[in-house]
Amino acid sequence: MARGGLAAPLLGRSQGSASGTLRKVFGSISGLCLLILLILFFVFVRYSPEDADVDVYYMWYIHVAIMIWVGFGFLMTFLHHYSLGAVCLNFFASCFITLEAAFVIGSFYYSDHHEAGSWLVVDLNLPLLIEGLFAAAAGMISFGAVLGKVSPAQLLLLMVLEVPFYAVNNYFIIDQVFSAKDVGGSMGIHAFGAYFGLAATLFLSRKGTGSSHTQNRSNYTSDVTSMIGTIFLWIFWPSFNATMAMPGPFSSAIHDSRFTAVVNTIVSLSGACLATFMASALVDGKFNVVHIQNATLAGGVAMGSAADLSDVGPGGALAIGMVAGILSVMGFKYIGPVLEKWVGLKDTRGVHNLHGLPGLLGGVAAAVVMMVNGDWHGFGYQLLALLVTFNVAILGGAVSGALSSLVDRLGTDDAVNAAFNDQSAFSIEV
Amino acid sequence: MARGGLAAPLLGRSQGSASGTLRKVFGSISGLCLLILLILFFVFVRYSPEDADVDVYYMWYIHVAIMIWVGFGFLMTFLHHYSLGAVCLNFFASCFITLEAAFVIGSFYYSDHHEAGSWLVVDLNLPLLIEGLFAAAAGMISFGAVLGKVSPAQLLLLMVLEVPFYAVNNYFIIDQVFSAKDVGGSMGIHAFGAYFGLAATLFLSRKGTGSSHTQNRSNYTSDVTSMIGTIFLWIFWPSFNATMAMPGPFSSAIHDSRFTAVVNTIVSLSGACLATFMASALVDGKFNVVHIQNATLAGGVAMGSAADLSDVGPGGALAIGMVAGILSVMGFKYIGPVLEKWVGLKDTRGVHNLHGLPGLLGGVAAAVVMMVNGDWHGFGYQLLALLVTFNVAILGGAVSGALSSLVDRLGTDDAVNAAFNDQSAFSIEV
Amino acid sequence: MARGGLAAPLLGRSQGSASGTLRKVFGSISGLCLLILLILFFVFVRYSPEDADVDVYYMWYIHVAIMIWVGFGFLMTFLHHYSLGAVCLNFFASCFITLEAAFVIGSFYYSDHHEAGSWLVVDLNLPLLIEGLFAAAAGMISFGAVLGKVSPAQLLLLMVLEVPFYAVNNYFIIDQVFSAKDVGGSMGIHAFGAYFGLAATLFLSRKGTGSSHTQNRSNYTSDVTSMIGTIFLWIFWPSFNATMAMPGPFSSAIHDSRFTAVVNTIVSLSGACLATFMASALVDGKFNVVHIQNATLAGGVAMGSAADLSDVGPGGALAIGMVAGILSVMGFKYIGPVLEKWVGLKDTRGVHNLHGLPGLLGGVAAAVVMMVNGDWHGFGYQLLALLVTFNVAILGGAVSGALSSLVDRLGTDDAVNAAFNDQSAFSIEV
Repeated sequence: MARGGLAAPLLGRSQGSASGTLRKVFGSISGLCLLILLILFFVFVRYSPEDADVDVYYMWYIHVAIMIWVGFGFLMTFLHHYSLGAVCLNFFASCFITLEAAFVIGSFYYSDHHEAGSWLVVDLNLPLLIEGLFAAAAGMISFGAVLGKVSPAQLLLLMVLEVPFYAVNNYFIIDQVFSAKDVGGSMGIHAFGAYFGLAATLFLSRKGTGSSHTQNRSNYTSDVTSMIGTIFLWIFWPSFNATMAMPGPFSSAIHDSRFTAVVNTIVSLSGACLATFMASALVDGKFNVVHIQNATLAGGVAMGSAADLSDVGPGGALAIGMVAGILSVMGFKYIGPVLEKWVGLKDTRGVHNLHGLPGLLGGVAAAVVMMVNGDWHGFGYQLLALLVTFNVAILGGAVSGALSSLVDRLGTDDAVNAAFNDQSAFSIEV
Repeated sequence: MARGGLAAPLLGRSQGSASGTLRKVFGSISGLCLLILLILFFVFVRYSPEDADVDVYYMWYIHVAIMIWVGFGFLMTFLHHYSLGAVCLNFFASCFITLEAAFVIGSFYYSDHHEAGSWLVVDLNLPLLIEGLFAAAAGMISFGAVLGKVSPAQLLLLMVLEVPFYAVNNYFIIDQVFSAKDVGGSMGIHAFGAYFGLAATLFLSRKGTGSSHTQNRSNYTSDVTSMIGTIFLWIFWPSFNATMAMPGPFSSAIHDSRFTAVVNTIVSLSGACLATFMASALVDGKFNVVHIQNATLAGGVAMGSAADLSDVGPGGALAIGMVAGILSVMGFKYIGPVLEKWVGLKDTRGVHNLHGLPGLLGGVAAAVVMMVNGDWHGFGYQLLALLVTFNVAILGGAVSGALSSLVDRLGTDDAVNAAFNDQSAFSIEV
Repeated sequence: MARGGLAAPLLGRSQGSASGTLRKVFGSISGLCLLILLILFFVFVRYSPEDADVDVYYMWYIHVAIMIWVGFGFLMTFLHHYSLGAVCLNFFASCFITLEAAFVIGSFYYSDHHEAGSWLVVDLNLPLLIEGLFAAAAGMISFGAVLGKVSPAQLLLLMVLEVPFYAVNNYFIIDQVFSAKDVGGSMGIHAFGAYFGLAATLFLSRKGTGSSHTQNRSNYTSDVTSMIGTIFLWIFWPSFNATMAMPGPFSSAIHDSRFTAVVNTIVSLSGACLATFMASALVDGKFNVVHIQNATLAGGVAMGSAADLSDVGPGGALAIGMVAGILSVMGFKYIGPVLEKWVGLKDTRGVHNLHGLPGLLGGVAAAVVMMVNGDWHGFGYQLLALLVTFNVAILGGAVSGALSSLVDRLGTDDAVNAAFNDQSAFSIEV
């Protein structure tokens, strides 16, 4: 049933070559990465349970994990012949990033916890694994921009390279130097992940793999499975913004503001959902399922910087969510097509509209709350953090995208045939 | 793949008109509703964290949210050309109801918390949001009765009007006057939602949109996605019945009976699941997937009034669940068709069989437990509460259905063409 | 859409007979089982809330329940014409096993809690229900081996018979006599369930129902819905291994090692996921979706015995997971086909590769940790427990499979027609 939708000859060549490169290139690169990871974990990592680690952090860890693997994984199944690639490569890559980032971020914090001159020790516990999941979120946002256009080996390389840029940006720029407000990562996760992916896609998307590609589309079933991702992301997003809003090893919080972060995010997400349906009907005359799958979540993105600020208030949270939803719909309707036409930006999942723009909005929203409170110092550093994040992401994405594009390089015809097509990497019929 | 199942000409007209009305009617009504909500939240709502609000309530909030958005959302995807409408409109409408009901119910409780003569203040916290989710559950039950037959604007109006009826019924009749037992809402949520929807559908379902409509059916894929909803509802239902079984701002509980509510509901749901498979095989000769998607949940509905009563006992809970499952299967097999034929009741999802009848059973079950305990006073008020709920629901549903039917009114042919068809409101091919 | 894939005549006969037998055989057997269960629960079972039962155990109960009903249920939807049978019969059978096992296991522990000579009383609480879910996990693993080849009545009988074997093995052999380490059931749940099912399938799989059966295959949609199961199992597995790693009524733990169990399992699962993608690319040249749906989980299985041992360490956990993932891929690629060809083992879901082999590995891994620590006594008993489990499972599976095969016996042609086909038991078109 429902198979054989693509003629075999069209795929004959790319299939053959893909099979060879997947075994050789992906096999060797992933094997090398796994070996390094194994050695690092054996030599440098040890368990470090905090008091009541499980009771305090485990529920939040699970919630964020659901967002990464169910949420992003199924959200990206919308492409009708790339659903398996979306959920499976999201599975693999998130897994790798979580461990790599736990090691990298744990190393950064090493100097805070240990005496000078001692051997590097990474203390692995649940807060550090949550930090790893945050990095995976940034990575999966970047994946959305290059979705269907990169080989598994290219994706793995891109993600391996993204982690240090992500970690440096968050550690030095946000956590340590500017002390910007970004508890849920409007800037450090969403804007970073989006602009990193957008810069990378300039190097990784071949001509002819834009929105007019015949396979760059959904069908009825893939639209429904994509809604699984949307709904789970939407439900669990309050946990994403709240899990670091309490004092802990990787948190700058000085008191427990999880209640504020949870309720601000619930209200903001509700505002985004409601505004998205309204805006979609107004701009398209019918509901556009792309808007509903994505823009409904913009309230979570845009509340990521200011979530733990009680000055936002229920009305403010609702307003931020509504503005974010409308901004995201406008992005999909008007800004995305313009960027594709004039800048050549081929953003498969439209991450600019869900994570880029609402991420910038979120960073600015927190700055505005500070300004209203007369904290001009904070206001300035918040905008500076946003600017630095924007630049690190674009620089990092360009470098990483260019490097990743050096492996599995296909001719233009083969690249177009392989795009958005699970037969490139999976032994299945679509 | 799997597209083009409907001939284009059949939909040509309704598509055209739907596009116009969605932009104008839904756009303006939803815009107005959002504006009012935004003003109310800015002026009247403030955060009111209880002690340990997040630690005590957040997990239960998330569980109930999963039931609303994953559970009801995917359960209703069973219609093969209305899966997106089901999950998306469930998403939008539940979101709106939650905020509206939080405001309305918060206002009702205002007089309990504040001194006379002070300005209205709604204290927003997690228990109030859970109350909002309960109202959304009632709304989504009503939605099941009119599923596929109402435009988005009609649905929004119906839900906007349902909330005050729901809140008045629960507050005055159950919480304050009769003090009926209804911790998980057998009466106040399930029976109310079902009879409200059934009364509304008399005004909102057009001739020819009953069970013989060619699109009023599932296919293999939509039956599987519907099972996502069933399974998540079934797993998390114990939380639905237990979350208010502890002392708190919106609970009449005087001690913590969450253990009893959880275990009673687990056992009752198990009984319903087991009895449903047996009964379905007996009445149909094969398993009817409609029974399995719905009647397996009747044990949760029927345990909604007596969940926190330890007198029920493991055997009693199992018996209530089994009776509820069998009753629900009988409803689908024998009662539903009779009601459609003789009363003209076009109940798309069969909410009468899952929420109406088992809801009544649940209210009576709690009354019987009281009677056995010699509490004749409680017994009488319990039945009275049931009777009042039944009447308020039917009256409210009729009024709200009639009012909602005034917008987006189509001719009979257009209504039949638009029914159970996502092309009416979504810019997709089915 | 996507219906009518099978010609009606092919199924005519088996449909007719199935309809008759489902009503008579399944109806009567399930009715009898339900009646007995109801009587047992009325007479012998009472609620026994431990202190803080809900606060300590409910989250873990829900996590394990998600694994049983969402995880195993959707993982098994991979067969393109047996998706409903998979998720629905998993629903029914898990429900029955949970209650039956709670009764049986509760009876076993009766003598520990009550004075000699008193009447049997089963104290029902959340830890006992979690024990019931563990038994359901073993049952659903066995179901995977016979998937698509047994009638509902045969499945019910098989599961009814599996529970006492399971309970005896775990209680006497692991918990009480050998005191083997098996907190997450590498041996007692996974290896037991796999070898029980494999022994049973020798009696329940008819000639012609092996991997070459034309309906024994997935399609694109069923591969995606199967990934729902994989992802949920993978996310919640740490809870499976950790929930008994604290002192409690059914736990042999003497201190709280939930942190160790959670982190060991997270790291091991990550290792299995990463190694599976690498190994699948290496052995198949492309990703084999069967490997990804299954072998990624082998890290959870293999960590089931040693999860609570902190000596494993992050590097050790990663290594165990990687080895388990590679072992599982090798099992699917090389060992499964050999066993089918030479032993006639028709293992529909490949449970030997995901639960059998990694379960043995898990038991051995814990033994090795003991040996390294110089605990030769524990080492010996661990291997002895593994050996006994292996034998009890095969003996129990053979006896139960043979007995179950006596009902609903079809001729060979009918059996082949009915296999892997939801029309055998469901009133649907596929």
